[in-house]
Amino acid sequence: MFFASDNAGPAHPKVMEALVAANQGYAMGYGADPIMEEVRAKVRDIFEAREAAVYLIINGTAANSVLLGTMSQPWQTIFCSECAHIHEDECNAPEFYTQAKLTLVPTADGKMSADALRTKILAEENRGVHGPQRGPLSITQVTEKGTLYSLDEIAALTDVAREYGLKTHLDGARFANALSALDCSPAEMTWKADIDTVSFGGTKNGALGVEACVIFDPDLAWEFELRRKRGGHLLSKHRYLSAQMQAYLADGLWLDMARSANARCAQLAAGLRGQNRVEMLFEPQANIIFFQMRRSEHKRMLDGGAVYYVMSGDPEIGDPDEMLIGRLVTDWSMTEEGVSQFLDLLRG
Amino acid sequence: MFFASDNAGPAHPKVMEALVAANQGYAMGYGADPIMEEVRAKVRDIFEAREAAVYLIINGTAANSVLLGTMSQPWQTIFCSECAHIHEDECNAPEFYTQAKLTLVPTADGKMSADALRTKILAEENRGVHGPQRGPLSITQVTEKGTLYSLDEIAALTDVAREYGLKTHLDGARFANALSALDCSPAEMTWKADIDTVSFGGTKNGALGVEACVIFDPDLAWEFELRRKRGGHLLSKHRYLSAQMQAYLADGLWLDMARSANARCAQLAAGLRGQNRVEMLFEPQANIIFFQMRRSEHKRMLDGGAVYYVMSGDPEIGDPDEMLIGRLVTDWSMTEEGVSQFLDLLRG
Amino acid sequence: MFFASDNAGPAHPKVMEALVAANQGYAMGYGADPIMEEVRAKVRDIFEAREAAVYLIINGTAANSVLLGTMSQPWQTIFCSECAHIHEDECNAPEFYTQAKLTLVPTADGKMSADALRTKILAEENRGVHGPQRGPLSITQVTEKGTLYSLDEIAALTDVAREYGLKTHLDGARFANALSALDCSPAEMTWKADIDTVSFGGTKNGALGVEACVIFDPDLAWEFELRRKRGGHLLSKHRYLSAQMQAYLADGLWLDMARSANARCAQLAAGLRGQNRVEMLFEPQANIIFFQMRRSEHKRMLDGGAVYYVMSGDPEIGDPDEMLIGRLVTDWSMTEEGVSQFLDLLRG
Amino acid sequence: MFFASDNAGPAHPKVMEALVAANQGYAMGYGADPIMEEVRAKVRDIFEAREAAVYLIINGTAANSVLLGTMSQPWQTIFCSECAHIHEDECNAPEFYTQAKLTLVPTADGKMSADALRTKILAEENRGVHGPQRGPLSITQVTEKGTLYSLDEIAALTDVAREYGLKTHLDGARFANALSALDCSPAEMTWKADIDTVSFGGTKNGALGVEACVIFDPDLAWEFELRRKRGGHLLSKHRYLSAQMQAYLADGLWLDMARSANARCAQLAAGLRGQNRVEMLFEPQANIIFFQMRRSEHKRMLDGGAVYYVMSGDPEIGDPDEMLIGRLVTDWSMTEEGVSQFLDLLRG
Repeated sequence: MFFASDNAGPAHPKVMEALVAANQGYAMGYGADPIMEEVRAKVRDIFEAREAAVYLIINGTAANSVLLGTMSQPWQTIFCSECAHIHEDECNAPEFYTQAKLTLVPTADGKMSADALRTKILAEENRGVHGPQRGPLSITQVTEKGTLYSLDEIAALTDVAREYGLKTHLDGARFANALSALDCSPAEMTWKADIDTVSFGGTKNGALGVEACVIFDPDLAWEFELRRKRGGHLLSKHRYLSAQMQAYLADGLWLDMARSANARCAQLAAGLRGQNRVEMLFEPQANIIFFQMRRSEHKRMLDGGAVYYVMSGDPEIGDPDEMLIGRLVTDWSMTEEGVSQFLDLLRG
Repeated sequence: MFFASDNAGPAHPKVMEALVAANQGYAMGYGADPIMEEVRAKVRDIFEAREAAVYLIINGTAANSVLLGTMSQPWQTIFCSECAHIHEDECNAPEFYTQAKLTLVPTADGKMSADALRTKILAEENRGVHGPQRGPLSITQVTEKGTLYSLDEIAALTDVAREYGLKTHLDGARFANALSALDCSPAEMTWKADIDTVSFGGTKNGALGVEACVIFDPDLAWEFELRRKRGGHLLSKHRYLSAQMQAYLADGLWLDMARSANARCAQLAAGLRGQNRVEMLFEPQANIIFFQMRRSEHKRMLDGGAVYYVMSGDPEIGDPDEMLIGRLVTDWSMTEEGVSQFLDLLRG
Repeated sequence: MFFASDNAGPAHPKVMEALVAANQGYAMGYGADPIMEEVRAKVRDIFEAREAAVYLIINGTAANSVLLGTMSQPWQTIFCSECAHIHEDECNAPEFYTQAKLTLVPTADGKMSADALRTKILAEENRGVHGPQRGPLSITQVTEKGTLYSLDEIAALTDVAREYGLKTHLDGARFANALSALDCSPAEMTWKADIDTVSFGGTKNGALGVEACVIFDPDLAWEFELRRKRGGHLLSKHRYLSAQMQAYLADGLWLDMARSANARCAQLAAGLRGQNRVEMLFEPQANIIFFQMRRSEHKRMLDGGAVYYVMSGDPEIGDPDEMLIGRLVTDWSMTEEGVSQFLDLLRG
Repeated sequence: MFFASDNAGPAHPKVMEALVAANQGYAMGYGADPIMEEVRAKVRDIFEAREAAVYLIINGTAANSVLLGTMSQPWQTIFCSECAHIHEDECNAPEFYTQAKLTLVPTADGKMSADALRTKILAEENRGVHGPQRGPLSITQVTEKGTLYSLDEIAALTDVAREYGLKTHLDGARFANALSALDCSPAEMTWKADIDTVSFGGTKNGALGVEACVIFDPDLAWEFELRRKRGGHLLSKHRYLSAQMQAYLADGLWLDMARSANARCAQLAAGLRGQNRVEMLFEPQANIIFFQMRRSEHKRMLDGGAVYYVMSGDPEIGDPDEMLIGRLVTDWSMTEEGVSQFLDLLRG
């Protein structure tokens, strides 16, 4: 009953096996290992992007920050949702790597609307040299609230960005979960929808710690490499990143894991829907659920062994009838039985 | 015959086994995993420093940069040798993380002398607010030239630093190799010699990718944590760093590996001394050898399957009699036979 | 009829005379000129702050940025109103100097409420090392909308800041206008209301270009000096800054000029109130008026020789009946006749 | 007898008159004043560069820093002499604005040789992504030691830079003194010698505080403007910068002043040559002299009312016979009599 985060579960055994297998003999460092060549080809294949620059990096904060640094200028502002991970959960890393500002687009459910984005874009670059200049758009898919942009919704946002000449970034920490839910191709969710760069996550979906940075315009590749190195994010024994990604992508493992995580989430959501004590805040579309229930109920669950974050207050202290928000996240490693056990406990 | 770098060999099987063992069930992320608790205690124990703050980070560039950021101010200059890794091989990462300048102390063999350091220190802070202010001292041990500071030499440098109120950092990417060669304790090579912070390397000595940042003054701990996060260097699935360090430190594995690497280097050096075509540039004291020989000889070796870096020119193109500098690095995984094979090839 | 900005008018003749008078013989540079000593004493006197560190700098953007840099850390977020000059009109200079983020507090009329501030403060530092940490509060007085915080309102904001241990900055680009309107002492509007540092403006109120940075805690002085120099904001021929501030503060000139500017604004506001075609957006309390009227009316005024900014659209192009926002700013050099002429033109 | 610095003398009366004259009525701010238009045309005229972007900024540190920021990337290193003002006297401002590193080219007399430059260039970009990348070359003319590059020497340096594709910057804080001494045209000393950008100084030569930034490639103009604003270096009441530069350039005043300063320096040098107690360290070619004499002699001069910097020790404390280095700087405002008085005092 461990639903705290999809970065708390174990790595998939096949990923670990690949790591062990890669640990043989000598291998040139810094991305010149032979596995990386294979990974590069595979990612290009999956994204139907023969020219794309592909790099590996250790986590999502670094992927987002180095990519956005490569796409923006210090006098710009980056447009993202007000609950974007790059704003809320990276301790100013994006500002550190870009030196730019973030402009927060309001959102009810984690998803920016094209209109809200346009309003924020129009509020900039109307004060000449005095105000920040418009920089790239960053979209999170799956959003931080567990919701999904449809392909049309992504295109609507990138259309607005393109109208103003802005580049676009997709924070795909949960790319596989999104893809599996939308049942579309990686190309459709990215460059065919006018996305320029992607943080293609592995860490939250069964890897130990690896994200691919996919840059569809290869002209940005060398600058990315310099920025990655300057951030201390170029690994010497790079083969251990490569091997993770190799196993992750082999035989559709990445999609299998995401599908399983999403299925467990759907199972959870179905169970929660049957409970009149529980209100889900957004329609869960991938592997995250936000829900409200009374403090006393949260306490009962936590005391009973369920592990998850209560986001809006202390489950132990306060009015037992106050409604508090909880977050449940599923990952590849969860079993149907584990979810049932949670739901049984909830039913009391 | 692979002597290119100590980051090109495999990780030790015991390190890999620990990784596999850690891959069970759920574990809180971001350093809150139970293995990290063990590692922290172990590092404090090894360093005889009960209060030290101990953090793990993915590589040496990051360890150095985040530590130096925590120790310096943007208007300062950091004193280091002119061949320091932080100057030559980190693509301005230290400047990125510190915003400070580096002042390069001249050196013949990779080692700064106390006098040379003092001269550079005296050249700063004599122009009031106009010049950079004096910042920390960073010493590399084993040096980039394969030489070693004795404990007295370290103390002589830190004495100068202390005289001017400067903090001190030890870049110990090859800490274990140094310790093994000096046959002293970690405490003697660090805080007992007035070192304030240490990049305690694992990556070059049998880990996949992990360094411990050891900060003897715990008051700097929280700032380090914020700087690490802001640099994108806090790993969510932190247990995979912890497990590496756990195995690395267990039963003296780290020292065994360093001892073996040093022994292979000594074997190499002994063999090279017998060759009149070859001149060693510095007295190899740990696991690195710089040597000169004719281009034609380098070419013969490389063609024969030896792998190492020729540092001062193209081994293929140019006057066959020109003397070129080569670098040989040994690691834990090398065998006596491998070294003999190299020496046999050299003897021709 | 020139109401575009209070930085478009001339400097006061007495300020210019002081500049000419200072231009005699040699004077040590970089703030060591004798006039600066006088200015420092005078500013401390005016603020009833014997220990305050006092520095001069060329403009408000620099004053705000260097002060905030001295007060904050790169992993923090600075709390300010959503229409703060530091956010809207300084092209990321505050981010450049602080490396921090800005958190925008919503405001209807340019003034933050204590509740709105508290809400934003509470939204940070609840995600440990992952989110930005709480940094200083910056208040603009006169606000960017021409409104004023009462002394109680300032104290209510700084009380909230103090509750969370935050430092406080006052952007006083129009400090004199505020003081004159509130009829209080500089001490009351600053340190007696728990303000830690002040950008004390001269440029918008009759100087050529000079602001005093007043820092009530002298322990921050040396860091400020280093940050000012590192920003390129320490002037060699500093006496020309000193002389401006000397004349500005002599015999209450600064307050006389502000009083006059405010009086012209009051005259304008009274005239506007009489026009049913015109709607003022906020109650003008110092020397700035925001007002709405039809595009056709704006066009008529501008064609008739009035000069001011239309903020919300092109006065030439579009529906003649659309309401557009205009901004009128008065300065010390305006005459009653000039304002009457504008109002006459408006009446048509 | 005031030879401390050319930033300690007064501004020329004509410059002050222009300032007073500019202080009439309203003028649009931020460089949109009509005088700036005139100045821009004049600078382009003087430099025979019809397309050049021309901006004014308050001092040399800012001019150098914003220009170099516009010309370089954070992962690069800027080549300059080891005694360059940008290295020694700007408290890391160039590093702040560029985020790059400085590579110091050794020099005996303030002048880099083409060979020494080439050696430093060749030492970079041979470690792939690991080392800093080669950035622009910055040359100071007049050098910090009072020496001059001939046009051929400048061309020899820029030839090397061009060979490696590097941009070139001229720190012309004493541009007029150099030009007057070399008797060449501004174009010859800059773009005809392959200089890309110039810090064209006014402050040290009779202005209150103004430098022109001249950028021969207008494609860099907008980035410069954004970087200037972001540094807090765009002045609202810009006319007071424009007016200074207007008067400075009118009727050759700038060259007259430099000629006079250089003549006083020549007079000083001639007098010093007659003294066997005195040794000049470099051949003075513009308005700066470095000389050695005994501590006791320095003390006698300073006690007698001469004002200048003793650079290499305390003139009051120490062995009276120790040789100490003094620096004499002349400016436009010095008289033949003043210099004679100094020389008389020296003769004793």
